[in-house]
Amino acid sequence: MRLARFRLASGQRGFGIVDGAAVVRVDHRIASFDAVLSEPPVPHADDPRVAVDELAWEPPVGDHPKIVCVGFNYAAHATEAGRPDAAPAHPTLFVRFADSFVGAGSPVVRPADDDSLDWEGEAALVIGRPGRRIAPEGAWEHVAGVTCVAENSVRTRQQHSTQATAGKNVHRSGAIGPWLTTRDEVGTGPLRVTTRLNGETVQDDTTDRLTFSFGHLIAYISAFTPLRAGDLIATGTPQGIGFRMDPPRFLRPGDEVEVEVSGVGVLRHGVVDETAAFQPREMLEALR
Amino acid sequence: MRLARFRLASGQRGFGIVDGAAVVRVDHRIASFDAVLSEPPVPHADDPRVAVDELAWEPPVGDHPKIVCVGFNYAAHATEAGRPDAAPAHPTLFVRFADSFVGAGSPVVRPADDDSLDWEGEAALVIGRPGRRIAPEGAWEHVAGVTCVAENSVRTRQQHSTQATAGKNVHRSGAIGPWLTTRDEVGTGPLRVTTRLNGETVQDDTTDRLTFSFGHLIAYISAFTPLRAGDLIATGTPQGIGFRMDPPRFLRPGDEVEVEVSGVGVLRHGVVDETAAFQPREMLEALR
Repeated sequence: MRLARFRLASGQRGFGIVDGAAVVRVDHRIASFDAVLSEPPVPHADDPRVAVDELAWEPPVGDHPKIVCVGFNYAAHATEAGRPDAAPAHPTLFVRFADSFVGAGSPVVRPADDDSLDWEGEAALVIGRPGRRIAPEGAWEHVAGVTCVAENSVRTRQQHSTQATAGKNVHRSGAIGPWLTTRDEVGTGPLRVTTRLNGETVQDDTTDRLTFSFGHLIAYISAFTPLRAGDLIATGTPQGIGFRMDPPRFLRPGDEVEVEVSGVGVLRHGVVDETAAFQPREMLEALR
Repeated sequence: MRLARFRLASGQRGFGIVDGAAVVRVDHRIASFDAVLSEPPVPHADDPRVAVDELAWEPPVGDHPKIVCVGFNYAAHATEAGRPDAAPAHPTLFVRFADSFVGAGSPVVRPADDDSLDWEGEAALVIGRPGRRIAPEGAWEHVAGVTCVAENSVRTRQQHSTQATAGKNVHRSGAIGPWLTTRDEVGTGPLRVTTRLNGETVQDDTTDRLTFSFGHLIAYISAFTPLRAGDLIATGTPQGIGFRMDPPRFLRPGDEVEVEVSGVGVLRHGVVDETAAFQPREMLEALR
C-alpha cells in the first residue's frame, strides 16, 4: 500500500491511499496522517478519489516530525567525502527541519546567495509504531514504510563549521516522496537506491551495503529520543555526490533529479532559483 | 512582562502573564502561545489567575518550535573545549528536539546508560515576529523575549561522531524557562549568564563577550531557514562545563542546577535517574 499526503489547487490538504492514477482519500474519516501511519487504513467503497494530476504531493511524514538524517553510511561515500573510517563505532546524525523539504514534483529552491546545492538520493524510513529503546531485531515492526528522499545539501554552508546544520536546513532545498510504501510491500531484502540527474545515473547502491542497517539506526536513535508515528530517518546517501566530482557539479535551475528506491517508487524534482520561487504570497505561506 | 506556559495537576495546559506569585491566564481568549509571542497580551481584569505553586512550568516556546543551539560562542569556552579558533567566520549550530527539554522546576533525566550528563547554562532568544533573511540591525525587533536554558549535554554520546546530535537530544536532559521576559524589559545591554551547581557558581559570563551577537545569530540562521513565533535560539554557554574540570564532574541524581540570566530570572532544575523518572504512565505520555 502506498500512503501519501497532498495539497489541492484550492489549498486544501489531504491524505490517503495511492491507487494507480488516483488517491483514495481517507482524511474525511481519519484524524491525521500520523494515525494512518500507526494503522494503515482499509479503503472504503465510498471514499472520495482525487486524480494524481490534480494534486501536489506533500512529504509523507507526520505533522510535526522529527527528521533525523545519517551521514557517511555507505563506505564508498564516506571515502569520497574524506571520511575514510571504514568501521565507525556509531552513526553520524544530523537533524533537518521539515520545511527544508518540498513534496515530490515541486521544485527545490537554490538559495540566492549560494550555488553549491548538491544532490543526495536516499531511502528513508517513516515510523509507524512509537517507541523508545527499540531493539534492532524488533525495529522493522516500528516502520510504517519506506520513502525516497532527495537529501540535498548546500555544501558551502555545510562546511561553515564542524556541524552540518546550516547546509542541511536550507529552506525547501530537499524533497521527500512521492509516497511511502508500507513495509509489508517493501519487504526486508536490500533496496536499490539510484539518483539520476537529467537522466544520467549519478548514484547507485543497495542498502545491504549500509554501514549501519535500518535496525541499527532505529535502535541507536531511539536509545536517546522517543520515535513517534510520522518521524523520518533518512538512511544515508551512496557515493556519487556532485561536490566530489572533478570538476564539482552542482544543481542548477532547470535540472531534473530522480531518486528511485526499488519497490518504493521514484521521487522527481526540478530546481528553481530562489528569486524565481519566492513570490510574496509564497513567502507569507512559508512563514505561517 | 513575563510570559509563561504551564501544566496543572489535572493535566490541563495553559499560558499567560506571570504576576508575582500567580499567572494571569490568557489561554481562554488567545488561541496559542505563538500568538502571545507575536503580540504580548494586555491583561484583562476578569482573566483567571493560577498560583505559581499550583502549576508545573513548561518551556516557554512555540507548539512546534525550531530549536537552534549555538556551540563555542564564548571564546573561553571554545578554548576549554579544545576549539581554540578565536575568530571563527561562522557560528557552529546544532538542532535540539523540543522533547529534549523539560520546564523549570522539573527534574532533568540522566539516562540509564550514560553518566556523562553535563551542565550548560545559556541565555536564549524566543522569536516573536517571523522572518527570513533578517538584517542584524533589525533582528531585535523579531525577538519576543529572553529565557534561560540549561542546554545540558550527554558528553559521551556527543562525541560518538563529528555531529553533536545524539548527545544534544537525550530525552528530557535539558530545561528551559521558567518564563521569557519580553524584550522591552530585558533591554539591549549585556546580560549576565550564571550557572550554579548546588549553590556553587560554575559558569559566569556576560553576553557582550559572545563571539556572535544576538543580531548576528538571528541574521545567520534566518539566512537559510524561516524563523517563526515560538522558535528558540540558545546563544551558547560560557566557560566552566563539568567535562573539562579536573577531574571531570557530571550531574548526578539529587543535584540542583540554577541558570540565571540577569533581567530575566532563574531556571532551577533537579536531576533524576531515568529508571526513577520513567514510570509507565509518563512513558506513555512522552510518546503521545
